[in-house]
Formats: sequence, C-alpha cells, structure tokens
Amino acid sequence: MQLGRVIGVAVATRKDEKLIGSKLLITQPISPEGEDRGTPLITVDTVGAGVGEQVIFVTGSVAARALPQENAPVDAAIVGIIDTIQCQTRKE
Amino acid sequence: MQLGRVIGVAVATRKDEKLIGSKLLITQPISPEGEDRGTPLITVDTVGAGVGEQVIFVTGSVAARALPQENAPVDAAIVGIIDTIQCQTRKE
Amino acid sequence: MQLGRVIGVAVATRKDEKLIGSKLLITQPISPEGEDRGTPLITVDTVGAGVGEQVIFVTGSVAARALPQENAPVDAAIVGIIDTIQCQTRKE
Amino acid sequence: MQLGRVIGVAVATRKDEKLIGSKLLITQPISPEGEDRGTPLITVDTVGAGVGEQVIFVTGSVAARALPQENAPVDAAIVGIIDTIQCQTRKE
Amino acid sequence: MQLGRVIGVAVATRKDEKLIGSKLLITQPISPEGEDRGTPLITVDTVGAGVGEQVIFVTGSVAARALPQENAPVDAAIVGIIDTIQCQTRKE
Repeated sequence: MQLGRVIGVAVATRKDEKLIGSKLLITQPISPEGEDRGTPLITVDTVGAGVGEQVIFVTGSVAARALPQENAPVDAAIVGIIDTIQCQTRKE
Repeated sequence: MQLGRVIGVAVATRKDEKLIGSKLLITQPISPEGEDRGTPLITVDTVGAGVGEQVIFVTGSVAARALPQENAPVDAAIVGIIDTIQCQTRKE
Repeated sequence: MQLGRVIGVAVATRKDEKLIGSKLLITQPISPEGEDRGTPLITVDTVGAGVGEQVIFVTGSVAARALPQENAPVDAAIVGIIDTIQCQTRKE
Repeated sequence: MQLGRVIGVAVATRKDEKLIGSKLLITQPISPEGEDRGTPLITVDTVGAGVGEQVIFVTGSVAARALPQENAPVDAAIVGIIDTIQCQTRKE
Repeated sequence: MQLGRVIGVAVATRKDEKLIGSKLLITQPISPEGEDRGTPLITVDTVGAGVGEQVIFVTGSVAARALPQENAPVDAAIVGIIDTIQCQTRKE
C-alpha cells in the first residue's frame, strides 16, 4: 500500500454504473515525511477520508476488495486513515 | 484510477477478436491541473468519451470489468468523463 | 494498452513449457509520434506482427487472455497491428 | 519480489476491517548494495520483521496470499527476512 | 516479459512457507544491448538459470503460474534462458 494525502474531489456524472455511489477523492502519493511523490490519482474512499488527511491507499485489482460491489472497475482505494507514522530518517 | 485527456484515436484492423467493436482512444495521463504526465496510452472507451475531453481511466486486469466481454485482453479503459475537479494546490 | 514498435526477436530454447510455440518479439514502447519511451520488453505475438511494425500490446495478467493456453506465465502480448494513429499534438 | 529495509511503522485505527490485526510496516525499497531506491511504501508483515531489517517484499494482488485472510485489500507484504545477499557488482 | 541478467542469490531462512524450496535469484533488468535498466529484483528461478546468464522474467500475479505451487506469494519468476537476441538499433 502507499501513503497519500487527500487533495481534492473528482466529480463525473457520466461514468461506469458500478462506480455510481463511490466517492472519488484525488490523492497525492507522499513520502513518510509528507513530501509529494509522483502524480495525484483518483481513489475510491471506503473509510470516510476528507481533504487534507493522510491516508493509506491500495492499488491494482485488489482495490475493489474494499468496496461493497467487488466487481467494480476500480484500481485504487483508500483503506485507512493515518493516525501516526514512526519512521527512521532515510539513508541515501 | 487516473486522470487523462483524450488526444486521439488508434485504428487497427488486425487485432485480437475480443477487441473487435472496441473504440480505441489515445489518452494522455494528466495532473489535476491538466499538465501532461508520462506517455500516452491506448484505452478502450466505455462511456462515450471524445477527443479533448478530460476522463477517468482505470488500468490493470480490472479494466476489462468495464467491458461487455469481461475476458478481453484489455488493461486500460475509460470509465468516466470529468465534470469538475476541486483540488488544493500541491505542496512540493 | 500501449503503443510499440517491434524491434527484434528473442530466442530461448530452455523455457517454461507453457511458452513453447510462442513467438517472442522484442517491442519498444513508443509515443504516438513514434519516439522511444522506456525499455524494450519481450511480448508474445498473437496477431502475426513483424519487425518494424507499430503494434498495440497489453501488459499484466490479462495478456495471457490473448493466448490459446490462458494459464501461461505471460505478462505482455501484442494484440493488434496499427493501421493509423490520429492524434492532437500534446500540451506540455 | 523486491529488496527492502524496514524503516518504520504506520498506525491507522480507522481502516478496512480486513486490515484489522495486520502489522503495517513502512519499507524502503533498496538495491542489493543497500541504497534507497524510490518511495517507501506500506507493507503488511507476515514473518515477524523489525525496523532496520533487510526484507523481501511482494507487491500486487499476490501479496494477500501471504495473509491468513486471502481476500484482504492488500497489495504489498513482507514474505522473507534476508540472511545474506551474494551479488556481482553491476555493469553500468 | 523483461530481459534480465542474473547477478546474485538471496538467502532467507525466515520466509513464507510457500517460498520454501524456491531458488531466489537477484536479477538486473537490462536492455537488448545488455545495459542495466532500473533496480535489481528478486526472482524465483524455474528453469535452472545461473549467475551471469541472460534470462526472460515475468512479473505480476502470473509469475506464480511458472511454479509448482501456484498459490505462492510470488510476483517475479525467471521463465526462460536467452539463446540469442536479434534486434534493430533503437531510434531516439
């Protein structure tokens, strides 16, 4: 899974029917220190995350396992909201 | 899922039979601010998207779940057309 | 799926038995304008592609769906040969 | 699979129920020489790894195969603790 | 699939039971010209490859299809040993 920060919301009325009812949040992947890492992506929220929160998101075919309709065409879902990160500083 | 902008169409008469009838659109991955991010890819359209539109696309094995023939060798599909993106500016 | 250009052939006598009979082509991922993008990979040909041709290839677990033996350890397959690409120029 | 070094722990009370009881370790991908390679990710520990240890981790849908509940939305798991690495120096 | 060169061996006594008996080789992804491309990874050998040999390896969930125990948490396996590569020089 990856660390992310929720930075926004995507709205799409014309979408696959199995996505109807899913909350589409825009998540910025981040390092443990909170720095942006790569391009923001669209994640389905499954734990009530809000903009600004640090989250755990999963990608790939297993992401749909976090949704009620397991057969949805979803490849990224938020599956946790971070309380704390305890981390050694990184060796370059 | 990822944000993208449809930039073109790919035509291939000689192709896997399970792709016959699929509309192959060339999609440029983009950031929430609309900047190009990485190499364009070929996506199967499932929601009637057109060139120039901002879309949501899914990649990996779940992409075929958006198609009528679920067993197609497809790893990228457009599953939504963006109405609006509400986004905090990114912290670098 | 991705755009590619077939640039060569890989020959391997000692290989997984489920790959026996598969034509292993070396494919260079390209942009819609035909420029090289990233490292060439080995793809199983399923549509009769030849060296120099522009192709559509699929990656990940769905690639094996394009083969007769669906349970092969294959993660990349050519599933179409490009006739034409119609594309808007990219916005940087 | 990839080589990694465990650098920390992530704590998330609000998470998918199928993650309850999983130990979430932050793992830094590394080269065989121990240098950091890319962004740290969150891995589920399945072999009793601790901070500072070099580990083997698997990503993608197969990661959940290392867990008791196979249907968990998990895309990265530690599946081994490194004893030794014997490696030729790399040719650039 | 990708081209690689076997550069070493990883030993891990404490590992997932479904990995017991698997030979864990460290493989450096390479270009058709033999240049290093990206970070070495750990691959399960299924064809008797040795250090220094050029190989074909597969990644993702299909990698386990090359193993006797198909349900192993494995995302990378060597599935062929290269005899020859015939390749056009690349256009940049």
